[in-house]
Amino acid sequence: MSVSTGDSVFDWIDTRAEARAKAGLTRRLRPRPATSTDLDLASNDYLGLARDKRVTGAAAAAAMRWGAGSTGSRLVTGSTELHTELEYELANFCGAQSALVFSSGFAANLGALTALSGPGTAIVADQYIHASLIDGCRLSKADVVVAGHTDVPQVKNALATRGKRRALVVTDSVFSVDGDLAPLTELAAVCREHDSALVVDDAHGLGVLGDGGRGAVHAAGLAKSPDVVTTITLSKSLGAQGGAVLGPSRVIRHLVETARSFIFDTGLAPGSVAAALTALKVLREEPDRPGRALAAAVELSERLRAAGFRASTPTAAVVSVQAPSPESAFAWAEACRTSGVVVGCFRPPSVPDGISRLRLTARADLSEADIDRAVRVITETGASAGAVSRPR
Amino acid sequence: MSVSTGDSVFDWIDTRAEARAKAGLTRRLRPRPATSTDLDLASNDYLGLARDKRVTGAAAAAAMRWGAGSTGSRLVTGSTELHTELEYELANFCGAQSALVFSSGFAANLGALTALSGPGTAIVADQYIHASLIDGCRLSKADVVVAGHTDVPQVKNALATRGKRRALVVTDSVFSVDGDLAPLTELAAVCREHDSALVVDDAHGLGVLGDGGRGAVHAAGLAKSPDVVTTITLSKSLGAQGGAVLGPSRVIRHLVETARSFIFDTGLAPGSVAAALTALKVLREEPDRPGRALAAAVELSERLRAAGFRASTPTAAVVSVQAPSPESAFAWAEACRTSGVVVGCFRPPSVPDGISRLRLTARADLSEADIDRAVRVITETGASAGAVSRPR
Repeated sequence: MSVSTGDSVFDWIDTRAEARAKAGLTRRLRPRPATSTDLDLASNDYLGLARDKRVTGAAAAAAMRWGAGSTGSRLVTGSTELHTELEYELANFCGAQSALVFSSGFAANLGALTALSGPGTAIVADQYIHASLIDGCRLSKADVVVAGHTDVPQVKNALATRGKRRALVVTDSVFSVDGDLAPLTELAAVCREHDSALVVDDAHGLGVLGDGGRGAVHAAGLAKSPDVVTTITLSKSLGAQGGAVLGPSRVIRHLVETARSFIFDTGLAPGSVAAALTALKVLREEPDRPGRALAAAVELSERLRAAGFRASTPTAAVVSVQAPSPESAFAWAEACRTSGVVVGCFRPPSVPDGISRLRLTARADLSEADIDRAVRVITETGASAGAVSRPR
Repeated sequence: MSVSTGDSVFDWIDTRAEARAKAGLTRRLRPRPATSTDLDLASNDYLGLARDKRVTGAAAAAAMRWGAGSTGSRLVTGSTELHTELEYELANFCGAQSALVFSSGFAANLGALTALSGPGTAIVADQYIHASLIDGCRLSKADVVVAGHTDVPQVKNALATRGKRRALVVTDSVFSVDGDLAPLTELAAVCREHDSALVVDDAHGLGVLGDGGRGAVHAAGLAKSPDVVTTITLSKSLGAQGGAVLGPSRVIRHLVETARSFIFDTGLAPGSVAAALTALKVLREEPDRPGRALAAAVELSERLRAAGFRASTPTAAVVSVQAPSPESAFAWAEACRTSGVVVGCFRPPSVPDGISRLRLTARADLSEADIDRAVRVITETGASAGAVSRPR
């Protein structure tokens, strides 16, 4: 009998990698330098706050004063007074009763869905929800029904015919691939009618939509509803890291005591907490930033559509531009990068409809010259990628 | 027909809260100030690096230079050259081929387990693994078999009788509640014999065990094994935030391309990356720190056992002390806190055997006077908590 060396245990990984390579779906990390002259149309730093000196200065000062890490779980030593202050300010800004900070938006979504459901619950989820919400559904032990994208009648029907007493409807506010909006008002009404709660991931709405960037849930007048729970991230418009859940105080207390991704995780680092706090302050002082991000997205989209591309109509700061194939999307994004414009490239399985896309994000600090440059580079490179799909 | 106000949707939460209160299991956040004269025996800052000026200074400088957040997913804009440097240094320090940084140890565990398993896989897990590994198992879609705590024959039997071709054995190296060790050498041998991979969460081993704090996997000579994958956290001994997976390069490349908790999460903030990098440097320069943490744990445990308490025998920097009930554990921990000694209080469901405990963590920077004070306070308060269970 031969002695195994263990070398073949992961051979299956190579087979998978070859299959991805053949399908044009290989992904590679592209580490970036600290400074660059490239134009960033790929990050989620919608308000340009990640590099704002007030925000980075607050992060630095907090690391020095409070420590580089929070040192433990939020329920043990990982809650500082800074966390409490951020939770107060987030709830206050967004108009919710209470807030709870997690170490990421991903963790916030897992925590909200698992702690608010369970075997006695039905979850009705939009088919295009974010991966972290999908994983929350998978962990929830609930009956999960997937409804068509933004299909309110389907949601209503699933609630009406559910076999469980409790129910959650789960949706993104702004869907991350195309930047389109969920029908929040209609979903909330259907939930109310059917004694169900609505859970909204407002990751791409906060800082962009609503009065002064208070988000899509606030804009829909739902922030204080007793049956609505909102999740957000601190790592997009707020330029920091982390996530949070906003909602009725009893929901937040329940998460403190039962959400596994809260209890069994180290608390968010003080520097990230302080950065988000300061970003909120900047947002209050400069309430025109969200509108500028949105206007930049609209201009980008209109000019790309005028040039013949299948660009989405932005309702937030995300614009997607369809590509004919994963390979051409990748080649197009690479060509943009070579020309100094960094764009996102979304391919399966990150696109729910299977259509590969460039994903552009607009920022409040994009200049007219930046937009000119972006349109020029994307247009020039798009022709060779075969992406112009209809005549002007 | 009356119109619902939505107020009753979360009434079930109040019922649950009342049940927890009756069972003595209410949990509350206790935000801490920036500075305190309390003695910390509750954090996971084993080496005292979270407040080390070299570490906090590096976090501050990185926030200023690289930004407060990483601005996107690791595959889009969230990978900086600093992330790459940390991945190189972590792999190098721990003796692994490659490393991948996640935003938390929780996310690293979810990513490793889900990306390395699937419906064609059997997972054999120690019954006391960390909650994040349990959630990884739940998400994995694999056949999951729970083996008795550190029960190698049971693991062997489960591997031998599995109905799936591929298999993962999953364990903590140092179990987080009692600080006891997994039989890594034996588990690795059993895995090798049965063409299976071993996944080890070394969160509480890194920085405490092995040559210069290289961790339990390195100490067992398994860091370079082609069939062993290690997960670690940057938020315990390294004083920062985040987590990582270490292992064969093909495993790491596979995680980059397929781990949902990596792909769909924002990259770790540059400040946390820099803090962990600098903590690694300090650990290389001061290789006696791990031994000091361990020695402090041993002394704490021996003196508490001499005083009649059921204290665990530490093999790492964690010491648990059993309490007669959840209520008395809580009262005991509160009494310690009132006397200026902050200890962890672990109650169900955070203790797999249902026994409530004080959980003490030793640090490399505990002085003899600190240990005297800790033993005095725990002993004095323990008597009134009814925790002395055998005569001296």
